[in-house]
Formats: sequence, structure tokens, C-alpha cells
Amino acid sequence: MSSPSQNTLKIGIIGFGPFAQFLAKTMIKQGHSIRTTSRSDYTDLCTQLGILFFRDMTEFLESDNDVILLCTSILSLSQVIKSIPFSSFKQPTLFADVLSVKEYPRDQLLQVVPQDSDVLCTHPMFGPESGKDGWKDLTFMYDRVRVRNEVTCSRFLQIFASEGCKMMEMSCEEHDRLAAKSQFLTHTLGRVLSEVEIEPTAIDTKGFQKLVQVKESTTRDSFDLFSGLFIYNRFARQQLNNLELALESVKQQLIKRMNEELDRSMYRPSN
Amino acid sequence: MSSPSQNTLKIGIIGFGPFAQFLAKTMIKQGHSIRTTSRSDYTDLCTQLGILFFRDMTEFLESDNDVILLCTSILSLSQVIKSIPFSSFKQPTLFADVLSVKEYPRDQLLQVVPQDSDVLCTHPMFGPESGKDGWKDLTFMYDRVRVRNEVTCSRFLQIFASEGCKMMEMSCEEHDRLAAKSQFLTHTLGRVLSEVEIEPTAIDTKGFQKLVQVKESTTRDSFDLFSGLFIYNRFARQQLNNLELALESVKQQLIKRMNEELDRSMYRPSN
Repeated sequence: MSSPSQNTLKIGIIGFGPFAQFLAKTMIKQGHSIRTTSRSDYTDLCTQLGILFFRDMTEFLESDNDVILLCTSILSLSQVIKSIPFSSFKQPTLFADVLSVKEYPRDQLLQVVPQDSDVLCTHPMFGPESGKDGWKDLTFMYDRVRVRNEVTCSRFLQIFASEGCKMMEMSCEEHDRLAAKSQFLTHTLGRVLSEVEIEPTAIDTKGFQKLVQVKESTTRDSFDLFSGLFIYNRFARQQLNNLELALESVKQQLIKRMNEELDRSMYRPSN
Repeated sequence: MSSPSQNTLKIGIIGFGPFAQFLAKTMIKQGHSIRTTSRSDYTDLCTQLGILFFRDMTEFLESDNDVILLCTSILSLSQVIKSIPFSSFKQPTLFADVLSVKEYPRDQLLQVVPQDSDVLCTHPMFGPESGKDGWKDLTFMYDRVRVRNEVTCSRFLQIFASEGCKMMEMSCEEHDRLAAKSQFLTHTLGRVLSEVEIEPTAIDTKGFQKLVQVKESTTRDSFDLFSGLFIYNRFARQQLNNLELALESVKQQLIKRMNEELDRSMYRPSN
């Protein structure tokens, strides 16, 4: 059996919003050494969690990390990347991200990460709500975009595998293609249901109750996340068009049937 | 304690499709005497269930019913009603229906049901799928449109109350107003999701899985039911318009944010 110090990682998290905090708690539980920096000040929260918070990016980077984990919002990624002095990295590092789109951070990271460092793009398909009772059987997507240091990458993936996640290796492109059809579509309908102000009624069917749940869970996420799913996933726009066309098609089918029904009742023999 | 014969009813069901069969099984279990007629021939099925099937409407009506229960499709209601010789009823009868719209059968029945007979409009908010493990806590909506014979009406409602249904008395108008916002909306989105051909993916979120379930359950119902919910509920058209406007609004919000994001990245100081 290996000692904890051999398998644990020093993980520096950039961006410490609710999703990063959610991931960090499990990483801390597993014995990893977590330090973080963020635009907002999380000193008090980090003190409670027993981890270090750095207000200054340079000091944060000097804290000697095996992994730099980007947990920024999609919309702020490019600005955060610009604020990182990549030339100052003294040792090969694994750069990983957990953004809900994947081609975009992959392309951004490949442009700036030093040649001797690695890039792993990931998307845990769950969050503080769906993962509140543990991560067992929840899907963790990853793409080993540029990995030479197998040991660090494996240890990082093991964080999720050891919690029982369904480990799903796929390309960033395939992720974005599928996520546009599933996650982006779900968020779009959740926002549409919020616009029509659906609320539980006294005569809800089971199906309608599911829609109310979708509305509530998607609107708990920020509009920044939703717009990030749209702007930085090149497959999303087509899905939005498909949704519009589908609604128009369903409407036309209803109107056609209504007209047939009117004709039928006008010319029906009165028996 | 009263003997079974005092509390059981002779119920004649008009229209013996899957939903009527589903209701009949529980009524038979409770000891009621069921007889039925339908456009299709259900002689074999009725023999299996131990109940009488009449091919002829006149013979069916001569079978001496306490309750005539209309279980036709919404679209065929007016033709079925035309085929009933209401003048031949020899005794006061309770006319009840279970259609998924309520103002329409109420208006149709009030026009034709003899003055000494009663009218009860109901909508069990469940079906063979959601009610397959019993009816406990499932909602049963009803409107005592014209009830003088309290005994027969109470015995009929007791069929659902005794199974544990949540008994919800409300006007047909209120039902249709709420059902347009809930059941019709659910069926519309289920059809839209079917048009965009959503399928489970390797990276489904919990929310997306709920949408797949809504698609599957709503498209198991016929297009006739869906179009009936639209054509014969005067509140449905407004909900369809609201849905279109909401999708357009969400799209415009996304495009606005995308343009802001483009502006921001073009004029952002490169620090």
C-alpha cells in the first residue's frame, strides 16, 4: 500500500465559485492539497475549509502545483488565461479545466500552455445539486488533449473514478456536439418554461412535474453559464434553430388537424 | 355495514380504448357491474374481463345503467353523442365523462342529456402508465355540473376516493385554464422534443434525462389526443403563442449577450 503523500496531488484551483467549492470538498476529503485564487475574495471560506487562498496570481503560482485546475466561468476564461504568466512556470504542470464547453478551453489552453506541460479537458456532468449525495454513477467526461506525464493525469482522473463516477473518455468536439443536443437544449427549455412562468397547479400530471423540475434546476444556474453554453459551443446555434423549426412544425400540424376537424363538423351528416 | 349490492353501480362505458380498459379493471375489482360498447369490437377482451360487450348502442342502453361513462376520444365525442338516442332513456341516469378537456363535453352533454338526468364531468390526471402501481395520491378532478341524485354521484366518486386519489373539485373552466398551462404544454414540448429527435447520449445530465422521459411518455399517447387538447380547450392556443414568444425572447437574450461578448473581446485591453 502506498502512503497518501505518494498519491495525493497539489492542486491549484483558479476560480472558486460554487462549482469549484463543490469539487474542492471531495478533493480535500481525499487528502489532496488544495490552494486557490479567484476574482472574489474567498479568504474566510478557505480558512473554514483549511486551505490556502491567494489574492495574488503570482503568489498563487509560486505555491508549487502539480495541477492547475481552471474553474472559471466560460465567459471569463480568456481574461483569466491572459492574467496567467505562463512563462514563469518552472516545472511541467498539468493544466485541466471543468468548463461546460470543451473545444473552446482546449483551443485557448493549447495556445498558451508551455510545451513541456500537459492539457486535460474535462466536464463533470453533475453539480452541487445532482451530486449532493455523492458522485456514484454520475458521468465524468474527459479528453486527454496533450498528456505525457501519465502519473499526474491518472492521479487526477482517479479523484473522480474512486468516487464511482462513470468515466467517459471522448473528444472535445464529440462532447460539444452531444452537449448542444442535451445540456444546452435542457437549459434552453428551462429558460423558455421560466419565461412562460410555469408553476405547479392543482392538477399536475407526472410529466408536467418533470418540466417544473427542469425549469427550477436550470434557472438556479446563472444566465452567464447558459449564454456560455450558446456562445462558445459551435453546435448550439443549430440546435436552437432546430428547436424553433420543431415548434413551428408542431404548431402547423395542430392547425392542419384543427382545419380538418372544422371541415368534418361542417359537412358531417346530422344523423 | 351495507351489502355490496347496495353500493355497487351498473356502469355502461361508451368507448373502450386503453384508458377505459384501465379504469374498468379497477371498477370490476371493486365489484361494480360493467358493460360497454365501442366502435371497435372488444368482444374477446370483454369476455376475458367477464363483462358484457354490446355492438349495438340500443341494446347497450337497454342494459339498465346507473351511470353512462363516456370514454371516447375528444375528437369523436360529438359523433358518439349524436349516436345516442337520449329520448329512449326510461330512468334518470348519471352521465359522466373522463375526457382531458372539460368545457367541451360539459357543453355537449348539457345540450342533450334529458332534464331528469345528471351530468358529472371528470378528469383522472393519470393513465395506464402513471397509474400502473395503483391510484394512491394521483389527482382526480371533477365538476358536479348538474347533480340531483347525490347517492349515485357519491358512489361514482367513491370509486376514485377509495383508491386513495387526491379528489380535486373544480369548475370545468378552471380545469381547462390550468390544463392548457400544464398538460397541453407538456404534450407540446414532448412533440417538439420528438421532432428534434432527442435521444439519450453518453453525457446526459439529470435534467436532460427528464426531458427524454417527457418525450417518451407524451408520444406514447395518440396525436388525436394531443390535437384534441388543442382544438377543444379554448385556453390552449394562447399557451402555444406564449411558448413561441418565450422561445423567441430567450433567443434574443442569447444573441444580445453574444454581441456584447464580441464587443467586449474586440475592445478588451490586452494586458
